Amino acid sequence: MNENIIVELASKNNPLVLDCGKSLGPFKTAYTTYGTLNSDKSNAILVCHALTGDQYVASEHPITKKNGWWSLLIGSGKSIDTDKYFIICPNVIGGCMGSTGPNEVNPETGKEYGLSFPVITISDMVKAQKLLIDNLNITKLFSVVGGSMGGMLVLEWLSQFPDHIFSAIPIATTTSHSAQNIALNELARQAIMADPEWKSGNYNEFNTKPIKGLSVARMAAHISYLSEQSLHEKFGRNLQNKSKIEFSFDADFQVESYLRHQGFKFVDRFDANSYLYITRAMDYFDLGADHGGSLIKAFKDTKSHILCASFSSDWLYPTAENKLIVKTFNALSLNVSFVEIITDKGHDSFLLDEPEFFSTVEEFLDATYKKL
Amino acid sequence: MNENIIVELASKNNPLVLDCGKSLGPFKTAYTTYGTLNSDKSNAILVCHALTGDQYVASEHPITKKNGWWSLLIGSGKSIDTDKYFIICPNVIGGCMGSTGPNEVNPETGKEYGLSFPVITISDMVKAQKLLIDNLNITKLFSVVGGSMGGMLVLEWLSQFPDHIFSAIPIATTTSHSAQNIALNELARQAIMADPEWKSGNYNEFNTKPIKGLSVARMAAHISYLSEQSLHEKFGRNLQNKSKIEFSFDADFQVESYLRHQGFKFVDRFDANSYLYITRAMDYFDLGADHGGSLIKAFKDTKSHILCASFSSDWLYPTAENKLIVKTFNALSLNVSFVEIITDKGHDSFLLDEPEFFSTVEEFLDATYKKL
Repeated sequence: MNENIIVELASKNNPLVLDCGKSLGPFKTAYTTYGTLNSDKSNAILVCHALTGDQYVASEHPITKKNGWWSLLIGSGKSIDTDKYFIICPNVIGGCMGSTGPNEVNPETGKEYGLSFPVITISDMVKAQKLLIDNLNITKLFSVVGGSMGGMLVLEWLSQFPDHIFSAIPIATTTSHSAQNIALNELARQAIMADPEWKSGNYNEFNTKPIKGLSVARMAAHISYLSEQSLHEKFGRNLQNKSKIEFSFDADFQVESYLRHQGFKFVDRFDANSYLYITRAMDYFDLGADHGGSLIKAFKDTKSHILCASFSSDWLYPTAENKLIVKTFNALSLNVSFVEIITDKGHDSFLLDEPEFFSTVEEFLDATYKKL
Repeated sequence: MNENIIVELASKNNPLVLDCGKSLGPFKTAYTTYGTLNSDKSNAILVCHALTGDQYVASEHPITKKNGWWSLLIGSGKSIDTDKYFIICPNVIGGCMGSTGPNEVNPETGKEYGLSFPVITISDMVKAQKLLIDNLNITKLFSVVGGSMGGMLVLEWLSQFPDHIFSAIPIATTTSHSAQNIALNELARQAIMADPEWKSGNYNEFNTKPIKGLSVARMAAHISYLSEQSLHEKFGRNLQNKSKIEFSFDADFQVESYLRHQGFKFVDRFDANSYLYITRAMDYFDLGADHGGSLIKAFKDTKSHILCASFSSDWLYPTAENKLIVKTFNALSLNVSFVEIITDKGHDSFLLDEPEFFSTVEEFLDATYKKL
């Protein structure tokens, strides 16, 4: 029930028209589902993944063999209960796990896209997801849920397709990338593009991979996902399998060893060009600017029940950014609730075992489902 | 009066014994001075530079042709008044502006050190500075001043040579590098070492330079020097010489263009191996651990007048870290004062135009000088 499905959407004659002006069609979307769609198709929840996430939200990842990235939250008897809800999780376009992206073959040329893949936006990703939902003959999603970049997709759904979602849960996210957010992504992109193995994006042609550059990019991102406090608690100044510093450039400290490991294991499961495209989409995201500078206008037709959640030690998408979303919904007199989870674990909290967060999501979905 | 002087210190028979167990001798120290040493040699102030600083504290930099990095604070009639005080600013050992470091020639082999240069510590840097002060026949410095890594050197002076400094100003610093501090430095080192032009540290032999890696390292550091707020105020989501986004990987946003510029101009004036050695020294810095886990023990003989300063939006060495220093001095009943400057400008504030900071330093030095 939760195997990976790849579906072809749009067509050459009826393509997905992207924000950049180019078109994609046909394009592929890879997705997984969990649970059973009920007869009136009212129990479907769309889950939107973050920057380096994928469709393996609650099932084993085919490369890492690890549990799905949200398997603590989603599953039989869990907060998002697959015995009750039908979960759909697609890999975004631009991704690298089967959906059309820079490392897929361009049907027009028979060659990999590489940097000829069009620069996409969060809005494009959501339009592609809408075509998937249409393809599944679902008129109205019970809910759309996502954290970090996934939260941006949720906001975009609320703005673009207000009639097609009954409820929504944007988590640890923002309506536009700040200068610091852009700076961190630009650092990552420069690290990738500085690697001579990147070869202007054509590394697959040369049978190579910008492993070192992508690894440094991941290290930078990882630092931003953790709070100062969580790094302190996890590692402090503990040494890695040694009793004293060794006066060398090896990994003396556990935190160094951890970051190197995070970097090098990431390159096995993620594509460097996808990293460029998806971070670019995040940087371009600015819902207010897309609507004449007004968030009120962006959400003027929104009518869903909404739960917003933030994490107190998240410095990437801090509570203040999430409150701005809540304020906008309040100003529109929408049915919105908000919770800030107090935790030391930083932005990563939305993926970790946070019982208060889980129960908040569960109770919101239960109560909202009764209002259908 | 402020030209660059290079002096040879220690000797083969009487070398500087480093924390790693190896020896340096003779070694070179490049330094500048400003103002005039008075007859009783009581007006000397030692200025300690930060990670990428150098001896050009208040005079034109020979490569960048820019004003000295602290020329807003130090000069004739300024807060640290060169009409009154005699300023000495040495390049640290391990540096790349004339003091012995990895890109200097090893007199034993006639070849550049490269990675054969011993791994040094903040304590080693201070011992080298003490030999310079001895060489200048100064028994007691009126003050030792420094921010960021420079502040670590100030703390080390207070701990190692309590009888030789009358006052001290550690600014925006810490008694030990946190896991986050180490993580950021490790990211920078990995970016440098990932560059194939680094060539295991022997790039000069190959007549090349790890420009891209060092540039990425600098970009990462630069993000950590600025606050989220200062990045927002400086750049926000402003576009770089264009009216709309261009759906490409060029620098669409000003903050991207700024970071790329910061990275690429840095490589002209700084050496990649020096960056490795100096960040390593910072990561190893742990004054408490060096004294049986006790900061009280580290400063047990300290008797100087001390001013500590922090900046409210500094997330690299936050106020809490600086207060820990103040608390220790308080617990030792030392003559210590503390000021937190309220500013949005982040860690970089100590190098910027901060009038309240400048006047605090000036008043502290004036009042303390009267107690001589």
